[in-house]
Amino acid sequence: MKRVYLDNNATTMVDPHVSSLMNEFETSKYGNPNSLHTFGMEVRRPMEKALDQLYQGIGASEEDNIIVNGCATEGNNTVLKHYFFEEILKKGKKKKIITTSVEHPSVYNTAKYMEKMGADIVFLPVNTDGIVTPEILAEYLNPDETALVSIMWANNETGLLFPVKELAEYCRASGVPFHTDAVQAIGKVSVNMDQIPVDYLTFSAHKFHGPKGVGGLYIRKGHAISPLLHGGEQMGNLRAGTVNVPGFIGMGSAMELAVEYLEQERTKVRSLRDKLEDGIAALPDITIMGKRELRTPNTILASFKGIEGEALAWELNKYGVAVSTGSACASESLETDHTLTAMKIDPSLSHTALRFSLSRFTTEEEIAYTIEVLGKAVERLRQISIDY
Amino acid sequence: MKRVYLDNNATTMVDPHVSSLMNEFETSKYGNPNSLHTFGMEVRRPMEKALDQLYQGIGASEEDNIIVNGCATEGNNTVLKHYFFEEILKKGKKKKIITTSVEHPSVYNTAKYMEKMGADIVFLPVNTDGIVTPEILAEYLNPDETALVSIMWANNETGLLFPVKELAEYCRASGVPFHTDAVQAIGKVSVNMDQIPVDYLTFSAHKFHGPKGVGGLYIRKGHAISPLLHGGEQMGNLRAGTVNVPGFIGMGSAMELAVEYLEQERTKVRSLRDKLEDGIAALPDITIMGKRELRTPNTILASFKGIEGEALAWELNKYGVAVSTGSACASESLETDHTLTAMKIDPSLSHTALRFSLSRFTTEEEIAYTIEVLGKAVERLRQISIDY
Repeated sequence: MKRVYLDNNATTMVDPHVSSLMNEFETSKYGNPNSLHTFGMEVRRPMEKALDQLYQGIGASEEDNIIVNGCATEGNNTVLKHYFFEEILKKGKKKKIITTSVEHPSVYNTAKYMEKMGADIVFLPVNTDGIVTPEILAEYLNPDETALVSIMWANNETGLLFPVKELAEYCRASGVPFHTDAVQAIGKVSVNMDQIPVDYLTFSAHKFHGPKGVGGLYIRKGHAISPLLHGGEQMGNLRAGTVNVPGFIGMGSAMELAVEYLEQERTKVRSLRDKLEDGIAALPDITIMGKRELRTPNTILASFKGIEGEALAWELNKYGVAVSTGSACASESLETDHTLTAMKIDPSLSHTALRFSLSRFTTEEEIAYTIEVLGKAVERLRQISIDY
Repeated sequence: MKRVYLDNNATTMVDPHVSSLMNEFETSKYGNPNSLHTFGMEVRRPMEKALDQLYQGIGASEEDNIIVNGCATEGNNTVLKHYFFEEILKKGKKKKIITTSVEHPSVYNTAKYMEKMGADIVFLPVNTDGIVTPEILAEYLNPDETALVSIMWANNETGLLFPVKELAEYCRASGVPFHTDAVQAIGKVSVNMDQIPVDYLTFSAHKFHGPKGVGGLYIRKGHAISPLLHGGEQMGNLRAGTVNVPGFIGMGSAMELAVEYLEQERTKVRSLRDKLEDGIAALPDITIMGKRELRTPNTILASFKGIEGEALAWELNKYGVAVSTGSACASESLETDHTLTAMKIDPSLSHTALRFSLSRFTTEEEIAYTIEVLGKAVERLRQISIDY
């Protein structure tokens, strides 16, 4: 059976090099890095190396902080709840948190939770391109009232890239801290803290060919954070819990590889994506969401008139092609997709939408095969469709 | 160089079977379980099997819940903060949380944090054996005021086992929910939810030859819990974040093995531990903390008069023997150990204490070697000691 994996925005294959590196720290060098013996000490240098790989990967300065934690959901919760509990509830001066209506659930639902707890949350609308511009932010940002702005770097469903540099610069100029969920940006576009004044940045290893169950939170020098998990003194007292050494080291290595392959992402992956997109667009009655030049190089969200997204995903799966109807984080639910709703996409389009997300492991042959079977699948399903 | 690992209460080697099982789900079956395609679906059955292994491992009923999360620190934070935020702050009826003065930092420091936030926390004292009895609990437990009781199953530093069955039964009879941090109990003694009325139970895979970065939280039917991490709908909306599939499956397998090897823990590990303990006790001026029959079968905390614990740990490390001065979670700090202080252990004894913790992988030969080099190390260090 053919296996073509085009769901890399949901999760990625662990790079075999990363996987075998981790293995050593499971069954041989398995010490707790806090321990004062060889088993503990021998993991410290590899961890330092991994930390260097993370710092270099995102262009962090030595004086900035990177906390290794369990996942991007944890990172996003940590930043948002720090601002809610420490800045808003305790200090009580600034009361507003600004985010967007198209965030990943780990920001969106955390914001909804805080709203229920009494926070004043602004969910910014997006423009007709599906993104938040500095102009939109400016309409809602009152520096005297706003404790934090949190806007994603790239959208998980559409791949649309937000103008993070301009947004971050606007916040910096306004004196308001800026957080970005960069989960879908790492390894797809350049993410450089040396050039972009982001104050907090979240990432997750499993989205760039690292392991599941480990993520990172970048905190620029001079910005506060309080722990979400209390307990031991790990991560400079900012994230308790025995450090996931294999995950930590695996994430470092995956980050290094992600940066190494960035050029290939810009060229090979983009060209395969464009080829697939052209193949999709050549079918009748197709809508592609979001301008190509505004998207990460690996993502297509396309709507196939008359065919439920899930039906088409199933049909493609029969051919061994794995795609998604949207965010895997919500794909078990039947709720209307809040991202597409915010983009004012017609419900008939969003119900018939399918996401194709490539990776550096995607091949020419896989794309040619996908275009071929997609044509057959679309034709068959439209023949039996009552809406087409 | 010889490598003898006697620091299994800090962390354990991943069982090679578990590690190779996980590998498959990193580089081959790497789908997101929420995805509606083969890559997603093919991990579901192995995850169900792993969940069964967890349920069976702790004797949970089908109607109970087990949440797979990032670590025991997360599990402990989840339970304690649920009671603080949801029961104490929101409902405001019961205001007290009772725990002990010898808990692991993930409970102890979380309780301290909640105390700062205004919670009424009782840190129970221990008796001369170093444990909390139902009589001690009864002195402090007022059912009308107490929202939660949280008492560890076994202490990480001393290995002392708490009378969890009696404590849980007392709480049940009083109508107060009972949580236990069972991190040091799983794989060492029988942990059976079918026989012991614990309401919440925390565990961590890396303490029983599973991977780091994954843990579990058991919740008995009828007991509430609210998420610590908000976001996606994973774990029945109780723990957001992409499921760490390899970790989940690895933890299940490790749990099954831990239960399989329980008999060996009771016999072989205990007998090796006793042999080592006898070897230690045969040296002059030794104090062993906690009665042998009250401890987990794998742990010894011994005090060597006139020798700083760290100095002896370093000396043993030269021989390739890895031991700890106490909890690895705090061993970078110079703070006085709160557990030994609570046990009213003379500071001179706690500064000279060393923990030896065995596992099912510990061999006869390793124990004989450890006794041999320990004699040399103790003799040498006492010769240069100013306190001896």
